[in-house]
Amino acid sequence: MPEQTDDLMRRGYKIIQDAEHSRFGCDAVLLSDFCTVRKNETALDLGSGTGIIPILLAAKTGGAHFSGLEIQEKLADTSRRSIALNGLSEKIDIQTGDINDVKNIYEPSSFDVVTANPPYIRRNGGAINERIQIAASRHEILVDLRGVIAAAAWVLKNGGRLYMVHRPERLTEIINLFTEYKLEMKTLRFVQPYAGKRPSMALIGAVLNGKPNLTVLPPLVIYRDAGTYSDEITKIYCE
Amino acid sequence: MPEQTDDLMRRGYKIIQDAEHSRFGCDAVLLSDFCTVRKNETALDLGSGTGIIPILLAAKTGGAHFSGLEIQEKLADTSRRSIALNGLSEKIDIQTGDINDVKNIYEPSSFDVVTANPPYIRRNGGAINERIQIAASRHEILVDLRGVIAAAAWVLKNGGRLYMVHRPERLTEIINLFTEYKLEMKTLRFVQPYAGKRPSMALIGAVLNGKPNLTVLPPLVIYRDAGTYSDEITKIYCE
Repeated sequence: MPEQTDDLMRRGYKIIQDAEHSRFGCDAVLLSDFCTVRKNETALDLGSGTGIIPILLAAKTGGAHFSGLEIQEKLADTSRRSIALNGLSEKIDIQTGDINDVKNIYEPSSFDVVTANPPYIRRNGGAINERIQIAASRHEILVDLRGVIAAAAWVLKNGGRLYMVHRPERLTEIINLFTEYKLEMKTLRFVQPYAGKRPSMALIGAVLNGKPNLTVLPPLVIYRDAGTYSDEITKIYCE
Repeated sequence: MPEQTDDLMRRGYKIIQDAEHSRFGCDAVLLSDFCTVRKNETALDLGSGTGIIPILLAAKTGGAHFSGLEIQEKLADTSRRSIALNGLSEKIDIQTGDINDVKNIYEPSSFDVVTANPPYIRRNGGAINERIQIAASRHEILVDLRGVIAAAAWVLKNGGRLYMVHRPERLTEIINLFTEYKLEMKTLRFVQPYAGKRPSMALIGAVLNGKPNLTVLPPLVIYRDAGTYSDEITKIYCE
């Protein structure tokens, strides 16, 4: 599959991607923007794919070190080459491995922040793409919601933060799993394609063993008019 | 305490209210609008106060019968007088009683729909008004969230619907209690004072033993500009 190198418009960073498929989406960019990594903190991206989230977080935050866990060797390899291309090999490491096997890969309570842009669709929910790279990013084939949340709860320090993007229709399931794994949802922001339309995504921030108190933010609206990004999206993408 | 009679702007219905306090709020009007009661269905309002919700539902839906449960005799009496004033005594009955005692008041699985506009604030959350009528409508003094949800689950038929209005910051707690009492959240709509501002209320629809699949609706915005209602609010209040 041919590759191409795209500009991330942040500090001149670039990313190597499959030219046809599996390119990073709006979801990863919005999640990176939603996420806070403070100075000296460490962050792990569960299912890091092309490496887009660790690279964007390295560009925009003061975090000390960024890690990615990716089960598909081909994607892990591509992301390592992007990291090298940007001179970030000291700052970002990618492990090839299974999120469900996280206990054998990382120490418990070892990260301040976890990010996850997991597959949104249940295994039985619609046609599955014939290419595993695409299929696994969309459907819960290699990992499901419970696997991601359990892994996050295992690697997070007490008081550590999980930032996740998912579909609004799975919010109840997410909250139930959070409760089971002692994660408290603290921030919720829906993403709407247009003002007045139903949200297509939910940006979720949770704290391990956090106190209950949810802040629901006003929705993030993507398009002002057909083909024109809202001011907020333009700012997220271009500043 | 002096009373006044206000026009509900629906079928000429009126409501008797304490002139100074405890008047029905925007919350009750929005909840009544959010709620669906089909032909031949029965609906119970838990904590019916002045009777505003059963009266509005009698005005706008084709439901067969509406009930209200109110612990404060003075409020229950006022609501019965409003019901008589509107000629609705055959259509609406108000019981004086405690939501926590629901099992001794109603048969199990006896209503198609339950509505609730419960007190939003935890018992330890801030100063409590010296008048019980006001205090109990704001703080969880006479009933708490668990009590309301447990009562709803008890009186609802299998597949019956709960419509509730509450504060966004308590969403996680609401979903956890729903799960415990076999209620599945199916519809969620936040209410924002202005576009781009954080929501101040959440309108919630749930189904007893429903299948998981949440629809998040675009937020309901109250004011277009300072002092000017949005078109949607004008429509809810005046049509």
